[in-house]
This record gives sequence, C-alpha cells and structure tokens, in this order.
Amino acid sequence: MAGIVHILNGPNLNLLGTRETDTYGSQTLADIEAACATRAGELGLSVEFHQTNDEGVLVDRLHAANGKAAAVILNAGAYTHTSIALHDAVRAIEVPVVEVHLSNVYAREDFRHRSMIAPVAAGSIVGFGARGYLLALQAIADMRA
Amino acid sequence: MAGIVHILNGPNLNLLGTRETDTYGSQTLADIEAACATRAGELGLSVEFHQTNDEGVLVDRLHAANGKAAAVILNAGAYTHTSIALHDAVRAIEVPVVEVHLSNVYAREDFRHRSMIAPVAAGSIVGFGARGYLLALQAIADMRA
Amino acid sequence: MAGIVHILNGPNLNLLGTRETDTYGSQTLADIEAACATRAGELGLSVEFHQTNDEGVLVDRLHAANGKAAAVILNAGAYTHTSIALHDAVRAIEVPVVEVHLSNVYAREDFRHRSMIAPVAAGSIVGFGARGYLLALQAIADMRA
Amino acid sequence: MAGIVHILNGPNLNLLGTRETDTYGSQTLADIEAACATRAGELGLSVEFHQTNDEGVLVDRLHAANGKAAAVILNAGAYTHTSIALHDAVRAIEVPVVEVHLSNVYAREDFRHRSMIAPVAAGSIVGFGARGYLLALQAIADMRA
Amino acid sequence: MAGIVHILNGPNLNLLGTRETDTYGSQTLADIEAACATRAGELGLSVEFHQTNDEGVLVDRLHAANGKAAAVILNAGAYTHTSIALHDAVRAIEVPVVEVHLSNVYAREDFRHRSMIAPVAAGSIVGFGARGYLLALQAIADMRA
Amino acid sequence: MAGIVHILNGPNLNLLGTRETDTYGSQTLADIEAACATRAGELGLSVEFHQTNDEGVLVDRLHAANGKAAAVILNAGAYTHTSIALHDAVRAIEVPVVEVHLSNVYAREDFRHRSMIAPVAAGSIVGFGARGYLLALQAIADMRA
Amino acid sequence: MAGIVHILNGPNLNLLGTRETDTYGSQTLADIEAACATRAGELGLSVEFHQTNDEGVLVDRLHAANGKAAAVILNAGAYTHTSIALHDAVRAIEVPVVEVHLSNVYAREDFRHRSMIAPVAAGSIVGFGARGYLLALQAIADMRA
Amino acid sequence: MAGIVHILNGPNLNLLGTRETDTYGSQTLADIEAACATRAGELGLSVEFHQTNDEGVLVDRLHAANGKAAAVILNAGAYTHTSIALHDAVRAIEVPVVEVHLSNVYAREDFRHRSMIAPVAAGSIVGFGARGYLLALQAIADMRA
Amino acid sequence: MAGIVHILNGPNLNLLGTRETDTYGSQTLADIEAACATRAGELGLSVEFHQTNDEGVLVDRLHAANGKAAAVILNAGAYTHTSIALHDAVRAIEVPVVEVHLSNVYAREDFRHRSMIAPVAAGSIVGFGARGYLLALQAIADMRA
Amino acid sequence: MAGIVHILNGPNLNLLGTRETDTYGSQTLADIEAACATRAGELGLSVEFHQTNDEGVLVDRLHAANGKAAAVILNAGAYTHTSIALHDAVRAIEVPVVEVHLSNVYAREDFRHRSMIAPVAAGSIVGFGARGYLLALQAIADMRA
Amino acid sequence: MAGIVHILNGPNLNLLGTRETDTYGSQTLADIEAACATRAGELGLSVEFHQTNDEGVLVDRLHAANGKAAAVILNAGAYTHTSIALHDAVRAIEVPVVEVHLSNVYAREDFRHRSMIAPVAAGSIVGFGARGYLLALQAIADMRA
Amino acid sequence: MAGIVHILNGPNLNLLGTRETDTYGSQTLADIEAACATRAGELGLSVEFHQTNDEGVLVDRLHAANGKAAAVILNAGAYTHTSIALHDAVRAIEVPVVEVHLSNVYAREDFRHRSMIAPVAAGSIVGFGARGYLLALQAIADMRA
Repeated sequence: MAGIVHILNGPNLNLLGTRETDTYGSQTLADIEAACATRAGELGLSVEFHQTNDEGVLVDRLHAANGKAAAVILNAGAYTHTSIALHDAVRAIEVPVVEVHLSNVYAREDFRHRSMIAPVAAGSIVGFGARGYLLALQAIADMRA
Repeated sequence: MAGIVHILNGPNLNLLGTRETDTYGSQTLADIEAACATRAGELGLSVEFHQTNDEGVLVDRLHAANGKAAAVILNAGAYTHTSIALHDAVRAIEVPVVEVHLSNVYAREDFRHRSMIAPVAAGSIVGFGARGYLLALQAIADMRA
Repeated sequence: MAGIVHILNGPNLNLLGTRETDTYGSQTLADIEAACATRAGELGLSVEFHQTNDEGVLVDRLHAANGKAAAVILNAGAYTHTSIALHDAVRAIEVPVVEVHLSNVYAREDFRHRSMIAPVAAGSIVGFGARGYLLALQAIADMRA
Repeated sequence: MAGIVHILNGPNLNLLGTRETDTYGSQTLADIEAACATRAGELGLSVEFHQTNDEGVLVDRLHAANGKAAAVILNAGAYTHTSIALHDAVRAIEVPVVEVHLSNVYAREDFRHRSMIAPVAAGSIVGFGARGYLLALQAIADMRA
Repeated sequence: MAGIVHILNGPNLNLLGTRETDTYGSQTLADIEAACATRAGELGLSVEFHQTNDEGVLVDRLHAANGKAAAVILNAGAYTHTSIALHDAVRAIEVPVVEVHLSNVYAREDFRHRSMIAPVAAGSIVGFGARGYLLALQAIADMRA
Repeated sequence: MAGIVHILNGPNLNLLGTRETDTYGSQTLADIEAACATRAGELGLSVEFHQTNDEGVLVDRLHAANGKAAAVILNAGAYTHTSIALHDAVRAIEVPVVEVHLSNVYAREDFRHRSMIAPVAAGSIVGFGARGYLLALQAIADMRA
Repeated sequence: MAGIVHILNGPNLNLLGTRETDTYGSQTLADIEAACATRAGELGLSVEFHQTNDEGVLVDRLHAANGKAAAVILNAGAYTHTSIALHDAVRAIEVPVVEVHLSNVYAREDFRHRSMIAPVAAGSIVGFGARGYLLALQAIADMRA
Repeated sequence: MAGIVHILNGPNLNLLGTRETDTYGSQTLADIEAACATRAGELGLSVEFHQTNDEGVLVDRLHAANGKAAAVILNAGAYTHTSIALHDAVRAIEVPVVEVHLSNVYAREDFRHRSMIAPVAAGSIVGFGARGYLLALQAIADMRA
Repeated sequence: MAGIVHILNGPNLNLLGTRETDTYGSQTLADIEAACATRAGELGLSVEFHQTNDEGVLVDRLHAANGKAAAVILNAGAYTHTSIALHDAVRAIEVPVVEVHLSNVYAREDFRHRSMIAPVAAGSIVGFGARGYLLALQAIADMRA
Repeated sequence: MAGIVHILNGPNLNLLGTRETDTYGSQTLADIEAACATRAGELGLSVEFHQTNDEGVLVDRLHAANGKAAAVILNAGAYTHTSIALHDAVRAIEVPVVEVHLSNVYAREDFRHRSMIAPVAAGSIVGFGARGYLLALQAIADMRA
Repeated sequence: MAGIVHILNGPNLNLLGTRETDTYGSQTLADIEAACATRAGELGLSVEFHQTNDEGVLVDRLHAANGKAAAVILNAGAYTHTSIALHDAVRAIEVPVVEVHLSNVYAREDFRHRSMIAPVAAGSIVGFGARGYLLALQAIADMRA
Repeated sequence: MAGIVHILNGPNLNLLGTRETDTYGSQTLADIEAACATRAGELGLSVEFHQTNDEGVLVDRLHAANGKAAAVILNAGAYTHTSIALHDAVRAIEVPVVEVHLSNVYAREDFRHRSMIAPVAAGSIVGFGARGYLLALQAIADMRA
C-alpha cells in the first residue's frame, strides 16, 4: 500500500490558532497541515488532511481509510473521551491509528482523562502541541521502516 | 397502519461480516437484510432497512418512522450505551421499538453493559447474532397478533 | 440429543397472573407452560417446565439439564441480579441457556439492571412479557436449524 | 381474616441466646416465641412461629402467609441485606409485613446498612432486641384497630 | 428519674396534616401530641412535646433532656440524614433516644436512606405513620419494665 | 455588533408540542419561535432560529454564531448532558451563550442532572417551560443594557 | 392573592458587594433589594426582602410565605447544596419558588454542583449575577400573566 | 473433642473435574475426598465430606459442625462472595473454619475478589488447586499441635 | 488591629469534660477558656470565647470577627464536615482562621475525615486535645511576629 | 534447580514479636526463620531468608531469585496493597511465588483488603500467623512432588 | 528518655526554598533545621534532622527513633498520602509522632487530601508553612510538661 | 545548557527482552540504550542512561538532572501509576520531562490507566514499544529547534 497518511481532526479543531491560544497554541490547522506535508515529504510519506465537527463523519473517514491509507493520525478532540463508535471503528479497520492530542489532557478537567481511542490505538502522543502531528508521522515512518 | 418494519442500524454495522467475525459473525448487513425480508414475508410483514454512522441521522430516522412504520427494530451499535438523544427519540415516538444486539454486550467491556435504549424499548434481544433480527420480527408479529 | 427444552423459573414466578399484573401480565405460569408446549410442538421441540423459589434448586436443575436437555430457558427472577452460583452453573454446563425476563428490568430499580446470567447466556430476551418464552423457543429452534 | 400473625425468622436466628449474646441478647428463639404468644394473646392475636436458614423457604413461607395470616413479622436476618427475592415476595403478597431486627444494624458493618425488605415493609422496628417482636405485635394490633 | 418522655420533632413537622397527606397522613402534630399524652398516661409515663425547624435548637433540646427526661423520642425529620451534630448529641447524652419516622424513608429518595441518628439510637421505628410515636412510648415503657 | 440572537435547539425538540406534553408543554417549536420574535422585537433584538438532531451541526452553528450573533440561546436537549464537543465550542466562541431547558431536568433521571454546557454558559434558565426562552432574551437584553 | 413576592437570601449573602467581588459582583444586598423593588413595581408586583445565615430561619420563612406571598425567590446560598430541610419546605408549601444563584455554581467546586432546591423549584436561574433576581421577577410576572 | 474435620463444599463443586478443567483442575470431588482422607490419616485426623448447592444447607452444616467437629474446611464456592448468612454462621460457631479456594479468585472477575468468609475465618488458602484442601488439613493439624 | 483572638466553638462542645472523656478529655470548656486566657496573656494577646450549637450563629460570629479580631480560632465540631456555609464565611472574611480539633478526627468514622474548613483555613491543628487551642494561639502569635 | 526457597519479608516485619503482639503474635522474625529452616529440612528444602523495608530492594530480591530459587515465599507487608512494581516483578520471574500474611488482612482496615500480589501468585495463605510460612513451605513441597 | 526530637523529612523536601516558593515558602530545609534547633533549645529539647527521598529509609528512621527519641516530627511529603508502610511504622513504635505539612494539603489536588499518617499520629499540624515545625516542637514540649 | 538527555527507567525495566516479550518486545534495555545513543547523535544530542527499581532513587535522579540535563526521558514503569513523589519531583525541576511507556497501558489493567507523571510532563508517548524512546528524543530535538 502506498505511503499515504490520513490525518483526521475532530470537533472545534477548525478554530485552532484563533481561540484559547494559551491552551492550544497559535498555529492554525492550515499551518499544521502544511508542516505535516513538509515533514511527510522528508519521510517519504504523503498526507491527506480532514477536519469535521461530526462524530459520524469521523467514523466514515476511518472506514474510508481502510485499504487506502498506510496509517491514520487521529485527533478526535472532544469525542476522544466519550465515543465508543470511534473506539469500534479504530478497532475494526486494519490500518494502524496513531492518537494525537495537542494539549496535555491529563492536566485538565477530569472528563478529559479517559480516552476511548487509546486502548485500540497503535500508540498515543499527547501534550506536545502541533509538534505532536510531526512526531506521529515520524512514528509511522519508524513503524514502516 | 401497514405492516412495514423499519430496521435501523447504527455505527460500524456497515462493516459486518468483514471485521472481527469472531465477535460479530460472518454475515454482511446485506445478508441480514435479505434474511429479514424473507422472514418478514413469512410473517406478513415487510421491511425497510437503513444504516448510518451518525447519531443525529438515527434520531431523524426514528422520527421518520413515526406514523409510517408498524414497528422499529433498532440496533444502535455503540450509541446504545451513551445516547440520551436516542433514548428520548424512542420514548417520544408512538411506534414500538425492539432493541437488538448481535454480540453478547454483557460479556464484553464494562462500557457496553448499560443500554440507554433498553428502558424505553418494547423489548430487547441480545446475543443471538444475526438471528436476533429474525427473532425481533417474530416478536413484532406476535405483538400484532 | 433429543429436542427437549428445560424451562426453569425462579422465585415468585409461581405467583404470576395473580399479583402485580401491571408489571408481569395476567397470564399464570400454567398458561405460559401451555403456550410453550404448543409453540414447542410447532417447532419440533418438547418442553419440561419447573419453578422453584430456591437458588440451590435452580443450580441443581441446571446441572440436571446437562446431557438431557437440548437447551435451557432460564428466568431466574430475582436471583438473576445477584447469583454468582447460577452464573457458574450456566457456564459449567454444555447446554445453551437462553435468558428470559417478563418485565423490562432496565426500566425498573437500579438493582435489577445487572444480570449475572447474561454474560454466560447464549442470548437474552427481555421485556416482551410471556411472549418472551415463545421467542426463546424460536431462538432455540433457529440455533438448531 | 382471623388474627393470626406469622412470625418468620431467617438464617442463624436458631442460635439466638447461645452465641454472641453481647450483640443479640441472651433470650433463645423459644423464649421469644413464648413471649410473643403471651403478648399476642393480650392483644387478641395468635402467632405461628417459623425459623429457617434457607432463603427459598422464607419466600415459600411468605407466599403461604398470603390469605392465611393477618400480618407477618419478618426478621430475615442476613438475607435482609441482599435478597431481592424476599423484596419481591413481600411486595407480591397482600398481607402487611412488619420488619424486625434485634440488633442495631446501622451501628454494625456497612453491608448491614441496606435493607431490601424495608422499602416494601409496612414498617420497620430495629435495635430493641427481643422486645422488637412485641412492639411489632403491638404495631399490628394498632393497625387493625 | 421520673417517667417524663421528651418528644422532639424537627423541620417541617409543624406542617403535618396540612401538606402531602398521602405521604405523611392527615393527623396534625397537635393530634399526635394528644394521642401521645393519652398513651403515655396508660403506660405510666408523661410527655413533653417540642417542634423546631432549627438543627441547633434540636441539639439544645437533646442536651436539655439530659438528667431531666427518662427517654427521648426523636423525629429529626430532614436533619436525620445529614446531621453529625445530632449524632454527636444523641451519643453524648445518657438518656436513651428512640428514633421515629412517619413515612417509610427507605421507599423514598436515596438521600433519605441514611440515618445519622440510627447508629446511636436505642432503636428505630420507621414507616408506621403517627402510630410510630405510640410504639416508641411502648418501647420506652418496655425498656423501663 | 447588531442585536441578533441565534436560538439553537438540539435533538427531539422538533417534536415539541406533539409528544409528552406533560413534560414539555403543548407549544410547538414554531409557537416558541413566534413568541421569541415578538419578545425580541419588544426588547430591540431580532432572532434567528435553528433546530437540529445532530451534535456536529450544533457545533457548526455555534461556530457560525461567532462574529455574527450578539448572543446565543442554546437548548442542547439530550446533548447537554454528555457533549464535551459543545462544551468546547461554547468556550471557544466569544459570543455569550445562555442555556435554556424547558423541563426541570433536576427533577428527572440522574443522567439529566449534569450539564456540560452550564460551566461555560453566561447563565442557565431551567424549568420554566417555553417561557424560559423569553427570559433568556430578557437576560440578553439586560446584559447589553 | 396579592402580588407580593418574598425574596429570601441565605448565608453570607449579607456580605455581598464587600467580599470576593470577582465571584459575586460589586452590588450589595441593599442594591439588589432596591433594584428588585423597582423592577417589581414595573411588573405590578411588590417585594418583601429577607436575609438570614440560619437554615432553620429559612425554613420558617418559607412556611411564612405560604398563603401570604404570590411567589418566593430563594437564593439559599450554601444551604442549596445540602439542605433536605429546605427541599422539604419548598415542596410542602403551595407557593411557587424560583431558585436564583448569583454565580455560575457549575463552574465552581464539585460540592456546589448539586442543588437540593432545584428538583422542587418552579424553575432555576443561575449565573447571571444580581440580574438573576430581576429575571426571577420577570418569570413570576410571566407565570401570573 | 475428637479430631474430626468437616469439609464443606458449596455450589457447582460437584462438577469438579468435569468442567472448565483449565480453571479448576481435573480432579473430581471424590478424588479430593480420597486425598483428604489419606492426608488426614497421616496427620491423626479424620474427615467428613459434604457438598451442596444450597446456601441454607451450608448454614445448617456449619451449625451442625458446632460441638462435633474439631475444625471445618469451607469452600463456599460462589456463595463466598455474597453470603452474609455464611459470614454470620462462621462467626457464630466456636469451631475454627479454614477457607479454601481452588482457583486464584483474585486473578478472575471483580465479583470474586471479595470474600465474606475471610474476615471471620481462622485463615484462608487460595489458588493452590486441590492441594489447598491438604494444606488446610496441615494448618488444622498445626493449630492443634 | 488589636491582638484580640475570637475563639469559636461549635455544637456539643459545651458538654466537654462531662461526656465521652476517653475521646475528648476531662477538661471542660471553661477550663480551656481559662487556659487560653493565660497563654494568650503570655503571648501578648487576649481572647473572646464563644460556644453555640447553631450553624447560623457560627456564621454570624465569623462575620462579627471581621474588622474586630486579629485572628479566629474555630473548632466547628460536627459542622466541620458538612458546612459549606462556614466554608464560605471563612473565605469571605479577612481575618485568618485557625482550625482546631480536640480528637484525631482521622482515626474516627469516615464521615469525620473531610473538613470543609481546612481548605480555607490559615492552618489546622488536629488531635492534640485541649492543648490544640494553646498551639493555635502560639501559631497566631508566630504569624503576627 | 536445587530446592532453595527464598523467603522475602517486607516493611516493619523486622519488628515482629516486639510490637502489636495481639495482631502479629509473639514470635520474632528470627524465630520464624529458625522454624522455617527446620520445616524446610523435613521437606527436603533449604531456605534463604531476607527482610527489607524498601520496595525497590524487594523488587531486586525477586529478580535475584530468578534462576536461583526453586520458589519464593513473599510476605510483602504493607507494600502488598499498593505495589504495582511487586506485581510486575512477580509476574516477570519464572519462579513460583507463594504469598503469605500473618494477620487476617480481610478483618482489618479497608486499605488492607486488596492484594496486588495475589493475582500473580501461585497461591495465597492468609491469617494463620507464623504458621503460614510453614504451610507455604508445605505447599511448595507439594507442588514439587 | 532524653529530650531529643527526631525530625524526619520525606521526598522533595531537600528542594525547599528553591522550587515553587509560592506553595512551599522561601526557607530552605537548612533554615528550618536552624530555626528548629533554636526553638528546641528554648523549650529544653534538642533535635536531630534527616531528609530522604526513599520510603524505605523513612521506615528505617522511624524504627531507629524507637527507644532513642522522645518524639518524632514527621513530614512524609508525598508518601503521606499513599504509604501504608509508614502508617504501620508509626503505629508500631512507642514514640509519639507529630505530623507536619508545610502547605495546606486540603486546598490542593484530591490525591493530597488523605493522610495515611494522620490516623496514627499524636496530632497533625497543617498549612502553617515552616512555622509548623516550631509548633510541633511546642506541642511536644506541652505533651512532656 | 549542553544537549545531554537523561533517560531514566524504573522498576522491572532491567528485565526487558527477557520476560513477557509479547507485551514488552524482545529488545533489551541495552539494545534500547544503543539505539537511543545512535538516534541522539543524529539529532545533535547525547544521552545518559539509568535504570533502578527504587522509587526514591528515581526521585534523586530527577533532582540530579536539574541544571545538568537539557531534558529527561522518564519511563517510571509501575511507579507511574501511584507515585506522588515522582509527580512532585517532575514538577519541581526546571528540565522538561518527556514520559514514555513501551506498552499501551490503556489497553491493560485498570490500575495502569492513571499516570501521576502525565499531568506534569512536557508530553507523553505511549504504546510504540522501544521506538517510543526514539520519538521522545525527536520530540526533545524539536522542542529545542
């Protein structure tokens, strides 16, 4: 399978860089997409980037990655903490899924401490800000090496 | 009202038969739809079959069944365990709703042990695999007898 | 093994039809036994029907079904929610056990929401009233088909 | 209905007066039965006294009281705290059931603080030692006055 | 010490007979006081009756009973479930305290299931309506016999 | 910014006036929209009214209100109790959000007692039926005064 | 009944405007009383204003409102979260009680998230600061319209 | 008192060696009885062996051991985890009771982690399979040395 | 501000020295007041001593200390564990409040392990008996040094 | 591998026989070591005995036993209840580990009821005092037979 | 025994005065040691001061104090909240142990609210910063007076 | 500060590659150290590698890194889930600490789901096996870029 990485972003991530920059940093999602494309190129990968505020669409996107993507990077945002549907979708597909969170969710409210994605992810990268996406690409490159 | 049964399927059920066949069996959703149509015919019923990964669309479908369907068979998948919206929708409509689950959710993770649908369903059929849909049709036929 | 189905009924079910008919319906246990015999005959099965208020006797009956019955239908009544002994007995025997409850236990008190039987049952049928026994017979016939 | 009161005693109460007299007092169950008979006579009632270590037999006895006894005094001992079967039996019968405990269960281990009988009893009398039975007879006489 | 029984009533009991008569009965607190005086007389006791909506005043009253009353009957109403101050006061005084509740608190909201009074009371009488006070007087007479 | 108030309504609110009128009242959502338009006019405001059964669309609508609406009135229905995505969206936007619930959610099932919206709302108005929307408009007018 | 509204304020509210103004605002209770009187006048109502630090006195005041006040506005302060006595008093009287909180209690410590008043109130208005009282008056005027 | 040891076995242990041999081993209860008799003889003890599926009968057996047995070995099976009646019976009798479990209950489901017997036993031996009975006999011999 | 220390004592502390001397010691509250006056004099402070069984009066006393006392020593007794009103009062006033408990509350019942005062106190001194008051005076003298 | 048994003792066990002899007995650790050596000899085993107050050293000792000892007897004392490190060490090594506790931990504080060692031990022997070590040796001899 | 006080300090306290001075103050541990020596001298005591980051060494130090020290002042730092080993060590030795914490642990994270030391300490002094050590010395001097 | 990265490994990690290779992989800690040195060199960093089974030594090592290391990579193993001492040490030092776990702790036992390190770490990398260390080095290089 070709080295395409699907990068899926969940609710409110479209507001990145414009809201609560103390928590989430000042980079917009477009900035992150560009940085990911660059790093992916260096690692011999390419990226396809999506954002949606809808849980059902995230499930659809995970299904769509199956058989097409070499790996998925998933920042499911708020759905991370409650979505059994995403848990099931990650488990159902054969593509490895790397979980990313910008902020240190463990240093925030209790309801952000549980991840439904983590138990079925290939690995989790949490708290490094936008750099977490680049580390995830590195992780995928390492896994494919 | 005519004997049409709406059969609504929730997230990830589109993958049936192609994933985790140990847990969910090897029949696809199309196989189940065909089997339901056959059994429904034997029971003097007809079926209308839907699948969606979206919680909101499931709510819409339950509303749409009101006044049109004689009964609903609902396998809400992962939303079963968390969706108050589906709970409210089932309670709000006048059509009886029979809950079905393929796998024995009580033998799996803790977060699958609670059903938000069960308290407002006409009845629940759990753990019989694809046969559960046929039993649900039988239950509806019995209720209408 | 011949197609005999043991139908085991737990505590207080001997009062069916004479108490709290809003919750449990107006059919007596004898009515249900008769209906089961009829339906079983239609399905090429026969039934053996028992009721006891004693947890230990239910365990004995499950053991006795082993090697004799093709399947067991178990409505363990109040013991459903607390009996590890019944859980162990169902798991220990080789005969498939179908769990039935007349009322929608999930719409009642919290202490009725957990079933110790469900995780080890071949399937559960809950909330359809006396019709649940007939559906269980159908399920057994389907499983044997 | 004649003024017969069934007094039902649960597990380990046969050992009364011979064990842990600090907690349960030095009267034997026979002493209590005699005192009850005397007080009942003074109140125009008669008593029928039973003890069993078996939960199922207690359920049977409650059923048997239905239509025969004017009231039941129930000291279900350890089963008080866990038995949904007794809860259901008390609720199912039409005879008023007065709950009695010898010791102050609320001053003992946590697992003795919940009573499954209390929510369905006509009233509860707790902690007065053997005198609790006499108060229960008084309560029944008052209710019938 | 003379046979005076202090009967202390907590918050909202002044409204008895005029509110929620389904739950609390139609007798006013004055009716209960009169019935208590009569029954006390028959038992060779006398009563002193108080009501207050104030937790601190109930504590004061318990202290005041010490050395003056032969026993206390305490219906602490809503403070029953939360007041450690009353718990401590009952424990601190040497007079036996009999706890009374009109309604079956165990059949109501969860927050009424715990009594802070019960673990330090001489005994508890719950759910007999206004008759509970008369039973408490009987219990006191029995204890003094 | 002009005085436009976006009024966002979540799942099942499209059924208002046609279902469970004991709980939710007999006014339809269109009735409420009309009443809001009238009251808004009296207060020098205008309203834009939306309903959706989809959590993701509610998130989208909150984003869309940013920079366009003077304030948002949000009745998120069932999503109120579970949606971290809505919590994050309300916190992310700069427009004040007033939370409204028709029914007294605190007098209903436990799972309706927690609001994920309340901690980030400008204020909450609960239990006044359809009048709650008008009070929310008044609150917004007061805040802008 | 005349349009008098009793406005009852609980513990520490006498310090308003002089303490923790970040949380509670800079208006004193006297300021609020004056604003209420003005708004009440505009709405054809009059107000009677009380503050006490004593739970028992709040219970007394609720009783006193019965038959005298058209409605009660209750800000029970810290007692909101623990007082079953106030819960019972609100439920016992026939006058509608509107709950008000100045601060957003849901954005503060866990022990402020539960209200014992809310389940029995006619409605709750939370987080609007001193304006909440005026909204409560509006709500009462609307209810009487 | 003579050196007779009563060995009491609870529910489902009659199936030993014939079911779930991965968990419980391949020895039957008769094998264990024989091995116990042999080891007891070596230690100057004799054994009396019982099995029952009935909680009440186990209580009876414990009572019967009082004054007759030098010690009791109790494998209460599933009743271990829920039976307050057995807890009370062990505490009530004067004979030391050694608790035995074949499997490592702490490595299994959560509901097997609590023992109601352990707090009142002379000691507990868990997880050694059938050898645990022999160790229990050794423990009793050591205690009597 | 002059060096006056208000020493406030809550419910049941008026019984000190006369009840449960194993737990609370044999000194009366008057003894403690005298010892405090002496120690305060040595430290250049004076004391004003109060006791009440009423939560509301304790709140009043804390308010009254504001602007008058250099510091408060508060032994809120049983209200320590439940009173949000006292928590708020301590936080609202500007005078430092030192929490004192005679007994080791952490070695007693679970319901005494939480202090609502501790999080807002200047410090806590627990378990030293009557000497705790003298240590509190020393602490205040140290803080003022 | 030769029949050497490593006997590892955790924190505070060096004080055995000199402290709290009601709970732990009057034998010193040296007494126990001597008794173990004797019994081991009788069973054809030898022992190596260690005590440390340090969790890390216990982990080291378990590693050191790997490949050297035929079995380990581990009384991890207080670390039993909290140490995941010991849990992991026991699971990691190939030597069977028998858990021993002198006192009946299940009859003591709640925080002693959970063992992190038990789920990974070959078996557990609890509450027999110093004799537990000898039983563990017997268990090891039995396992090796 | 001579008046030597062992002052034991747990993990991270060696960093005092150099880290998080908002929480822990600007005094180094050496400053505190010097202040303690001075105050001890004034009180006729002497001090021996230790710090370690190791739980096991703290246990050793407590053992070592037995028979040598007149009293121990223990600031166990982070181990306070989890160490059963320290709990047992404090209980095992005969020397009184005074618990000290610099910061107000009750105003910090939940996991700092429970002390395993407090239930077995002679008393606890919390939240007074470095002055707490001096108060502890005073407490010891008072106890020895 | 020079680009030295301290890599600290906690309990049982010395056994890597020799135990439970299904969970932890077949690389030894020496293999990982070598791989880290290589990758660090590529990134312009150098590494210093430590392993200990002792919680206190890990605390010491974190202190030692302060002022010497550019960053710390911490795999605290089992102490991750319980050590408040490590939490405090990470927070106290100024060097950024990156948390690494080899296995997917979220897919294992409940007691491995909470990390005391995560809330104070610069970021967490979980579940990538030995590659996680290399990603952590990359993360540090990125942070320093």
